[in-house]
Amino acid sequence: MSAGWFRRRFLPGDPLPAPRPPGPRASPVPYRRPRFLRGSGSSPGPADASRRPDARPVRSPARGRSLPWNAGYAEIINAEKSEFNEDQAACGKLCIRHSEFGAEDDQEWLTLCPQEFLTGHYWALFDGHGGPAAAILAANTLHSCLRRQLEAVVEGLVATQPPMHLSGRCVCPSDPQFVEEKGIRTEDLVIGALESAFQECDEVIGRELEASGQVGGCTALVAVSLQGKLYVANAGDSRAILVRRDEVRVLSSEFTPETERQRIQQLVGVFGRGRLWNPAPIPVSRAARGHRREPGLSTASPPQAFVYPELLAGEFTRLEFPRRLKGDDLGQKVLFRDHHMSGWSYKRVEKADLKYPLIHGQGRQARLLGTLAVSRGLGDHQLRVLDTNIQLKPFLLSVPQVTVLDVGQLELQEEDVVVMATDGLWDVLSNEQVAWLVRSFLPGNREDPHRFSELAKMLIHSTQRKDGPTGEGQVSYDDISVFVIPLHGQGRGSSGH
Amino acid sequence: MSAGWFRRRFLPGDPLPAPRPPGPRASPVPYRRPRFLRGSGSSPGPADASRRPDARPVRSPARGRSLPWNAGYAEIINAEKSEFNEDQAACGKLCIRHSEFGAEDDQEWLTLCPQEFLTGHYWALFDGHGGPAAAILAANTLHSCLRRQLEAVVEGLVATQPPMHLSGRCVCPSDPQFVEEKGIRTEDLVIGALESAFQECDEVIGRELEASGQVGGCTALVAVSLQGKLYVANAGDSRAILVRRDEVRVLSSEFTPETERQRIQQLVGVFGRGRLWNPAPIPVSRAARGHRREPGLSTASPPQAFVYPELLAGEFTRLEFPRRLKGDDLGQKVLFRDHHMSGWSYKRVEKADLKYPLIHGQGRQARLLGTLAVSRGLGDHQLRVLDTNIQLKPFLLSVPQVTVLDVGQLELQEEDVVVMATDGLWDVLSNEQVAWLVRSFLPGNREDPHRFSELAKMLIHSTQRKDGPTGEGQVSYDDISVFVIPLHGQGRGSSGH
Repeated sequence: MSAGWFRRRFLPGDPLPAPRPPGPRASPVPYRRPRFLRGSGSSPGPADASRRPDARPVRSPARGRSLPWNAGYAEIINAEKSEFNEDQAACGKLCIRHSEFGAEDDQEWLTLCPQEFLTGHYWALFDGHGGPAAAILAANTLHSCLRRQLEAVVEGLVATQPPMHLSGRCVCPSDPQFVEEKGIRTEDLVIGALESAFQECDEVIGRELEASGQVGGCTALVAVSLQGKLYVANAGDSRAILVRRDEVRVLSSEFTPETERQRIQQLVGVFGRGRLWNPAPIPVSRAARGHRREPGLSTASPPQAFVYPELLAGEFTRLEFPRRLKGDDLGQKVLFRDHHMSGWSYKRVEKADLKYPLIHGQGRQARLLGTLAVSRGLGDHQLRVLDTNIQLKPFLLSVPQVTVLDVGQLELQEEDVVVMATDGLWDVLSNEQVAWLVRSFLPGNREDPHRFSELAKMLIHSTQRKDGPTGEGQVSYDDISVFVIPLHGQGRGSSGH
Repeated sequence: MSAGWFRRRFLPGDPLPAPRPPGPRASPVPYRRPRFLRGSGSSPGPADASRRPDARPVRSPARGRSLPWNAGYAEIINAEKSEFNEDQAACGKLCIRHSEFGAEDDQEWLTLCPQEFLTGHYWALFDGHGGPAAAILAANTLHSCLRRQLEAVVEGLVATQPPMHLSGRCVCPSDPQFVEEKGIRTEDLVIGALESAFQECDEVIGRELEASGQVGGCTALVAVSLQGKLYVANAGDSRAILVRRDEVRVLSSEFTPETERQRIQQLVGVFGRGRLWNPAPIPVSRAARGHRREPGLSTASPPQAFVYPELLAGEFTRLEFPRRLKGDDLGQKVLFRDHHMSGWSYKRVEKADLKYPLIHGQGRQARLLGTLAVSRGLGDHQLRVLDTNIQLKPFLLSVPQVTVLDVGQLELQEEDVVVMATDGLWDVLSNEQVAWLVRSFLPGNREDPHRFSELAKMLIHSTQRKDGPTGEGQVSYDDISVFVIPLHGQGRGSSGH
């Protein structure tokens, strides 16, 4: 099956770049001067030869013996944020074999494997930060983790309903009924495999980076076509959308410090008042009616018992304010919200509230501990806030959110596609603008066998021109990668067995 | 404004029932034999005289000087689960005064208050368990907490946009822009006030019950009509729906061990593998490609470092299985899911997996620690799993989820209503069945000034008859309370100022 994508700079089998000495690019980012800022002009530095906007699209066949998918077009958009392209990608045929684990050999997975039991397709985008190392590792590793996870449950995958016991042996006669009542379907096993594969890959990256003295992390957006369904797993701020003639459907959610505020705040404040259990005896005096204390300030009053006080090392405040507070705000009642609030309230500002906020900034500028723009992804095991011992990892989740699209149930048209892209594209183009570009491009290029690749290329080029087709004049300065996946044929053709 | 509701057995000002000695009704419930089971036939015991199904509807004026709302109809459905009705309710005019906190007197809130600054309406249902004490306290307390929280932010409530500083003093010229960029609206202050009020009320209940030697907890479902909007705050398994001529909209989500599985599991396993930070050095041997271990079992393999191991006291397993495991399952690979999974996978059963599950059972039978059927609510500070020191409270949230209905934007018909009811109603009637009953009843009773109360009564009676109007023949054995709130007029008439 042909799909458009952008070649990653490093393909499976490429050696990892040699460890670099700590420097401004590789080191953790100070929360006073965020460096991972997307869309900001970063300082000039060494960049690879094919960097945009002046480089020409590179038309090259897919290279390497182990890449079974059809050739496409390769292009690199490198925003000079690091020496190597921080965006990485992988795609290929997903060959799930039916073999007991341990008996299999160590052969390369991404090969044409005639003995496959179940086949599908896999596309993945990884947007690195703090260097390309984690993204390269993820591009080389995640599909293997996923294959292993799927092979471990393959008997359940091909059953009408997953059996309680993988062996099929029935310990309790009503086991099928228990599974039925829980509503467990075959697709839940694929979702579980994706969730576990992301975790496993994260651990591999942690070990590999530690062993090689490298640093960094990456977001991960994965699409898997299997048994007539398309699974989209996302950890980070990339995005996948379905574009049909009369429908645009978002297939992923972005995970940023802003969208995951409550989860992150809860980690340092789920029992914020420190007395929810083992409460100290408190004098009671008609509290139900005459209870008096300063209202509106109740949820943020000291003393607070953080769940993990050491995670903030006394340097950050858990609370969110519309802006960072300063001395002039002391004693004032200002807008704030805490982990338990989706609404807002006012609190009287104390000295502790002047600390740097756990989550700070707005929209694309929002940062976790002043350092990271994403709250889920792979890697970052060693990342610390500059000049502190505060680790980012406890706040980051490697678990993706998985969306399932029942492709078999859609009445697919030939030009129905899924567009997957890293955040650089979505910073500049809205879902509707991308849909408009898709619908404008495809009908006029029906004869071009590479039209999906050309479309992906066109989408990226739209972000590099001030006179772009949207007329908005916005230009992206970020690394960008795009997959365009045609859905026609996925419903029936993508699963073997 | 007239609304239908069911009188709670205890009204504001009634003395609390005397503390009762610990007994089978008041004591924590064993996880082996759940007693809080809804819809099950519970053992006969003393019940008040008006218990259903034989009691007649009691038509009585609203009693007490402090109840300004229009009289309605009173009826009690007591399922004999406890000596006193565990369902409690409160409603009234919400009078928010404009006064600095501390200067106000201690007068009863639920009075006609001519000096009000802003007025609205308040309806609340509390479904108690382990006795009625917490529900009675909540019915007597929550509105006061809410009023105080709202009065603390009232200057923000009446502004077009909440100011950064409650004083209105502008410390930083771009403060309005910060507030604008965060998208903070007036309704966020009401949401915040509801969230804080629930927390405050929970603390009051904890102190009061401790002081009086009583136990118990309750769910809470609150609707507040203010400034042209209806706010529905829910903590528990009650439900509110909007019924219009051609629309049924659910205004609340239920919070049960099943719907909150991941939050509850995360509390004892957010860093499940115990090495996400400060990882121990692990030998690396081409892990990215040659990494080998038993797949599908990875996410549940020991050793695990629980966040709060003491919360389970080694007596429960965090993992979810389709049914409770037994000796025959040992060594088998069975379906399971952990906190990070929305999908399912298989794991090989070890001895620790045979423990009682943290969350067990299906649908209405699902229990948290074998004890509680809800995962949010007020009270339960002293509740422990029978014969253990394991506390339920750390797993319970008192924070509600708040939904906002912009009544002012709806083209309201006279028969558009919100139906609020405790779980006993929804066990027997679906949203669509309730909507059908509403649409069947109201048009034929346009002249009856008490038709909304009659409708509420009719809804409850529908759950008590095997030949009920739905023809389903299901009968509820639970305490049931219902409010029917007519929306017509709320959009303009419910807010003062």
